Amino acid sequence: MLDYFFNPKSVAIIGASSNINKGGYSIIKNITAGFRGKIYPVNKSYKEILGIPCYPDIASIPDNFDLAIYFIPSKELPETVKECAKKGVKGIIIESGGFNEAGEEGARLQKLALENAAKAGIRLWGPNCMGFIDGNRTYVFSFINSLVWPDVLRGGNVGMIVQSGMLSAGFLLHALQEGVMGVSKVCSIGNKCDIDESDILEYMINDRETDVIACYLESIVDGRRFLNLAKQTDKPVIVLMGGRSAEGAKAAQSHTASLSGNYKIASGAFKQAGIIEVFDPAELTDMARAFGKHMTFYPHPGKGTAILTFSGGAGTVTTDLMEDCGLPLAKLSPETLASVAELFPPWNKPDHPLDLWIAIERHGFETVFRNSLTAVINDPAVDSIIFHSYATPLIGQAFFDELAALIRKHKKPAVLWVEGRKDFAQHLRGIAENAGLPAYREMNRCVTVLKGMKQHYTKKPMT
Amino acid sequence: MLDYFFNPKSVAIIGASSNINKGGYSIIKNITAGFRGKIYPVNKSYKEILGIPCYPDIASIPDNFDLAIYFIPSKELPETVKECAKKGVKGIIIESGGFNEAGEEGARLQKLALENAAKAGIRLWGPNCMGFIDGNRTYVFSFINSLVWPDVLRGGNVGMIVQSGMLSAGFLLHALQEGVMGVSKVCSIGNKCDIDESDILEYMINDRETDVIACYLESIVDGRRFLNLAKQTDKPVIVLMGGRSAEGAKAAQSHTASLSGNYKIASGAFKQAGIIEVFDPAELTDMARAFGKHMTFYPHPGKGTAILTFSGGAGTVTTDLMEDCGLPLAKLSPETLASVAELFPPWNKPDHPLDLWIAIERHGFETVFRNSLTAVINDPAVDSIIFHSYATPLIGQAFFDELAALIRKHKKPAVLWVEGRKDFAQHLRGIAENAGLPAYREMNRCVTVLKGMKQHYTKKPMT
Repeated sequence: MLDYFFNPKSVAIIGASSNINKGGYSIIKNITAGFRGKIYPVNKSYKEILGIPCYPDIASIPDNFDLAIYFIPSKELPETVKECAKKGVKGIIIESGGFNEAGEEGARLQKLALENAAKAGIRLWGPNCMGFIDGNRTYVFSFINSLVWPDVLRGGNVGMIVQSGMLSAGFLLHALQEGVMGVSKVCSIGNKCDIDESDILEYMINDRETDVIACYLESIVDGRRFLNLAKQTDKPVIVLMGGRSAEGAKAAQSHTASLSGNYKIASGAFKQAGIIEVFDPAELTDMARAFGKHMTFYPHPGKGTAILTFSGGAGTVTTDLMEDCGLPLAKLSPETLASVAELFPPWNKPDHPLDLWIAIERHGFETVFRNSLTAVINDPAVDSIIFHSYATPLIGQAFFDELAALIRKHKKPAVLWVEGRKDFAQHLRGIAENAGLPAYREMNRCVTVLKGMKQHYTKKPMT
Repeated sequence: MLDYFFNPKSVAIIGASSNINKGGYSIIKNITAGFRGKIYPVNKSYKEILGIPCYPDIASIPDNFDLAIYFIPSKELPETVKECAKKGVKGIIIESGGFNEAGEEGARLQKLALENAAKAGIRLWGPNCMGFIDGNRTYVFSFINSLVWPDVLRGGNVGMIVQSGMLSAGFLLHALQEGVMGVSKVCSIGNKCDIDESDILEYMINDRETDVIACYLESIVDGRRFLNLAKQTDKPVIVLMGGRSAEGAKAAQSHTASLSGNYKIASGAFKQAGIIEVFDPAELTDMARAFGKHMTFYPHPGKGTAILTFSGGAGTVTTDLMEDCGLPLAKLSPETLASVAELFPPWNKPDHPLDLWIAIERHGFETVFRNSLTAVINDPAVDSIIFHSYATPLIGQAFFDELAALIRKHKKPAVLWVEGRKDFAQHLRGIAENAGLPAYREMNRCVTVLKGMKQHYTKKPMT
């Protein structure tokens, strides 16, 4: 299913170009960087591009091929589909715009192309999209600028479905650089005249390389199918819905010609299907990378979150933010508090949230974090941990590896917030993420991520 | 008023140390870096510290002095106050802990010290605090590690009142490095046994160097006074309240011995007094630096915010986030849309939110941003602008200076969101902030900042 898109043997690039300022150049440059199958550039202006023979038209391509990428003006599409049919093509990714989103004539072209494709058994992806990226295979089947991604792309287990061209490019780059997250497939689905979010969702659910599915959607073509797919999988499905508001829905309609449904109904159905809803692109990727780290846990009624902090103020604000979104503060046992108290001077008894600063001054970061985390993680009232660290260069990779191992062993996820000097903070977040601990710049992000995990694993407990 | 704290002629440091691992070293090291008045270290273990003669006790100091910084164990405080009184001291900043926040004996000491101070007419600041920092004078009257701040501290017009030690250090560093924000005074007020948030607020309202006042508070000692001060000033007062929730209030009590009042009542009163409430430390500083840039504007009923974006998806999500918090989307005039349409191909008419990508592909970033911003800013229906830029190295400082001048001229504030590659995004946000445009990593931050500005300038219009 859809393997001819994701694993084609041969690809024609209709509208490939030698002009480095054109998207048709970026597409062929990107594809040659990772794809090892046959590549057929099509453009009557060139004999070859990047050393690959170029054909004036599809009919001139000497062999059949699986996949075409379409990047010429919209008016050529209906005929191009017919030409592709003669070459045994199974799928066409249409990255050009000028279809349903661009008025009546565009809509007519999209409809006609779709009819031609249906007759030939060809599936259409797009139009008005940026194609897809496979992080593990370094496939970039997209006109995203070829200077932008090579030192950024990282393979991994997060799949993304994005109904917006620039969001899938700009925000992918942001997402890949913010924490340590790798992607399996990132799919920009545009107008989705044929292939839609449910098709890709189904593919990703069955894809061994994808463990987490993060979506930006402006509409859902077949709501029942999408919800059923989400309900039946144990993989977390995270959705940022664009067009929730009346004005936003109008904007979405002009953007990808989507008719948003009634958002309030959609939001309720999401919850029932176990979909995790988010409200901002940064939240979408921050949530996805937390799940990507396999920080599974077993929530139980009556359990709560422990807060370990270097700052009483930060502990207080985090407690407020937790209460805002219904995450209970764990009731630490007297034994846990007594164990942590050993790090404290006699005149200062720790309370929960655990403000560890006085202990850190006496025993240093690593001893205090190790001992207090061990005490807390063994407390049966704790199901998860929010961990604040002051930005210090005094904590090393080995220490975070040790903490992460402890966390995995107990299946009680911890998320880290770091505050302080930028360079030290980046270093600390980096080594935490390398160890497998999600780390955030914003205090409230720790809270929303834990809330999302709790929602997911309550509905879909680990077996 | 309180000038003996902020502009003393002479300072004694009780508990100064030569041991670089001690806070008493950081204090004297920090003070000598910027303060040009007389400094009297007090510690019976040393003859001199950093080349400055050190005295075994206060009585041995040869002159009278204005200010003392106290950094020895709590039990010495009541007697120290008496000794200070003999030297004509007007204020003592108590940076040690071990008082009200540390049980009965601590509370007794705090009370006794306060009685002694009242008799002598000495004002007490703290205890259990980190003192203050003056960004314009490079005064760091705090035990904050002297390695941490020198290349970070930046003078400016944002005053901060922070009822938490580590938050005022860690989060100050974060704030100073995140955008381009400079601070006038940052005050850590701790247990506020005497000097409280209203005293500092009043000082900052009268301080010519402070234009914006940002507070993290866990309690308000004299609610009526605080609200009246906020109501009477035109300077924006932004408050993050810790202990809003029941559990958070308990945490605040253990942290700074504060008894939080009923938050719901406080929140309503804040709004009436024109105080801008925020819910996260990052939001506090992001809001403060927007106001710090003097992006004043004149909101009128019926006007709204224009969105200029490179991504239809980003425009849609921003529209949703605006509706979530009650910011209307501007109804652009047909003339404005026609003017922007000149940048577009005939088959693609722009709609609002203005998705400019197709125009950018044709005319480049600077031309499109300049022309569309000019069109929008002249539209009488627009009172503010949210501006999204793809992270590109193709925009320079001069261009943002030009945009910022346009924005200031029209008194319609613009805030910038940048998405894409980290290095390009940091560059772009940096030059935008240098030009005086607040720039954010999170889409929703643009929305909350504009909402805060609109709230402020609706209550307190520019004259």
